[in-house]
Amino acid sequence: MSFLSEINSPTLLLDEGVCRANIRSMAQKAGALDLLFKPHFKTHQSADIGKWFAEEGVEAITVSSLDMAEYFSDNGWQDITVAFPFNIRESGRLQRLASSVRLTLLANERSPITELDQFLDETVNILVEINAGAQRSGMNTDDPDRIDRIVGNLEKTDMLQFQGFYSHPGHSYSARSAGEIKSIHRDVMDQMKLLDRRYRPAYPELEICVGDTPCCSAAEEFGPVSAISPGNFVFYDLMQDSIGSCSKQQIAVALACPVVDKYPSRNELIIHGGAIHLSKDILNHNGTEVYGLPVFINEEGWEMPREGCYVKALSQEHGVVKGSSDWIRSVQVGQLIGILPVHSCLTADLMMGYRTLDGKSLNHIRKR
Amino acid sequence: MSFLSEINSPTLLLDEGVCRANIRSMAQKAGALDLLFKPHFKTHQSADIGKWFAEEGVEAITVSSLDMAEYFSDNGWQDITVAFPFNIRESGRLQRLASSVRLTLLANERSPITELDQFLDETVNILVEINAGAQRSGMNTDDPDRIDRIVGNLEKTDMLQFQGFYSHPGHSYSARSAGEIKSIHRDVMDQMKLLDRRYRPAYPELEICVGDTPCCSAAEEFGPVSAISPGNFVFYDLMQDSIGSCSKQQIAVALACPVVDKYPSRNELIIHGGAIHLSKDILNHNGTEVYGLPVFINEEGWEMPREGCYVKALSQEHGVVKGSSDWIRSVQVGQLIGILPVHSCLTADLMMGYRTLDGKSLNHIRKR
Repeated sequence: MSFLSEINSPTLLLDEGVCRANIRSMAQKAGALDLLFKPHFKTHQSADIGKWFAEEGVEAITVSSLDMAEYFSDNGWQDITVAFPFNIRESGRLQRLASSVRLTLLANERSPITELDQFLDETVNILVEINAGAQRSGMNTDDPDRIDRIVGNLEKTDMLQFQGFYSHPGHSYSARSAGEIKSIHRDVMDQMKLLDRRYRPAYPELEICVGDTPCCSAAEEFGPVSAISPGNFVFYDLMQDSIGSCSKQQIAVALACPVVDKYPSRNELIIHGGAIHLSKDILNHNGTEVYGLPVFINEEGWEMPREGCYVKALSQEHGVVKGSSDWIRSVQVGQLIGILPVHSCLTADLMMGYRTLDGKSLNHIRKR
Repeated sequence: MSFLSEINSPTLLLDEGVCRANIRSMAQKAGALDLLFKPHFKTHQSADIGKWFAEEGVEAITVSSLDMAEYFSDNGWQDITVAFPFNIRESGRLQRLASSVRLTLLANERSPITELDQFLDETVNILVEINAGAQRSGMNTDDPDRIDRIVGNLEKTDMLQFQGFYSHPGHSYSARSAGEIKSIHRDVMDQMKLLDRRYRPAYPELEICVGDTPCCSAAEEFGPVSAISPGNFVFYDLMQDSIGSCSKQQIAVALACPVVDKYPSRNELIIHGGAIHLSKDILNHNGTEVYGLPVFINEEGWEMPREGCYVKALSQEHGVVKGSSDWIRSVQVGQLIGILPVHSCLTADLMMGYRTLDGKSLNHIRKR
């Protein structure tokens, strides 16, 4: 019996072969460029998938919350960077983590460093966050005196060890080609060079870590960068395909959805698969706003999307799939179709687990 | 000690008083209009909150998945409508449910009625779904011969009992004032009258159920409608406020988020509260696209949002909050602020639980 006959409600399919190839390819790239590979585990949030990284030699990981840090610590990971401005309200959890793993946190100009230092009785490492253009959190490199000040403040603490710099150049998500990604990457590298020149003399072990999937996928040259922490590449998705950081063949997840209704006069299908499965993230795909692209599923996985077919609308549980009249006619009510997600991080977070093409169930932090 | 001092990471606050008032007000409206009140439980998905409905005399409920139907059945609910085109792949679960509760399902022209009938050995009730303008699922009233055909087909089955019609006029969500809602509602009522005239003579017990929060909140006259099944009104949200179906004072949930960073030069705060907490649903608020509105939290709950303050961007865990320079200056890193959600159904689904203002934790299906 095929794994497909056991799927009756929305289920996140994972193509293990594609996923392992994505992991291996990024690990090998980091290795060839002599970069420490600290993959971000926020996308998969799965101890089972974490093991595939360990098999590629990964020892240090990145996460974006203490929930994830605790989960991966419980699952044997010993070197964890929480790539999020530390939250002083969580000092108790930070202390417990610091006593069991090598813990690295991010700090910025307004982070309550003194309060954290007074609270901790274990050492933690600190990466100062750099805003390389994403305009989210982080300090600007054009004002090095302010960065000097925070590095100096860290030096005055007992428990906080200045380790280097971290940047997530998330503005690469607005690129629309590999060329645009590379241009953003060059600008980020120029900023990292400024930091390298200013701080490496006093800190020969300085870590400079950058973390976005588009740059880590498309760029070939990482200048003074010593570590990378991309996350999304483990699955990729339609957004990454549209940016130019992957091909559709590299997308490792598809949401299997039962077709529950059909409207040939509107060239539309209704699937069980909505905003609580895919998320409401949207993508402009060839001039149309789409919530995903439908694909036929078979025993071996899924086919590539057909031209002109897309998820047009999502409500809580329903998806409306638009397609050519031929394609719509070929789909039957009761059949399963797959949906390639716009943003796999959010889809995986909602689905809280995976089913591989040979029928294995893989875990997820939210279903511990 | 205040409940606020115990909150250190994103937490969905529920104002029980506001929520119970929303429930009571809708129950009283249904009672005054002699409508059966079959509230949709997809918004709260909580057995604890379900009890507040039972206290208002509610006995029949609506859900949108078998997961929810099973959960509420396990929690004592005996009369459950699954307002979603039935999925023949879930026949086994439908049979188990039908043996323990009074189960009502939706069917459409292409629903595999014969297959379901052959599978079941318990009776289920069927509401034929009507597309009153939302263009999602359902049959159009302008082609009554097709509706006759499905009603006729239901009559030929052994286990499927034709009970009436169901419509979710979701196009009311595109309204931008109570007046526009009422105009959509009048059009929906005209369609319901056609069904009433055509089917009531042969089916004196005919159920005609409509289910959207905007019409159920704003309309005063329900013509031939015999039942209502709104869901979102239990919490309301910014989208409902913008449509004109509630005031901001009626919004019963706010996401409490720690402020983790601050950029006065950009008039921005960074909060722990992102797309995996709020969802990526977006709203055009006074010409700006917003993901939520920030509010100050205090011992009694939260204040109303200030002019010009809004959630500008969300990534997986980060939220970027924009505000006036005075407002930004008044907020401290380490403080909690609240975010009124754009779409409370999706926020509640992501958060999987509630904390009331007196510190009680309320359950949610996804954390059973």
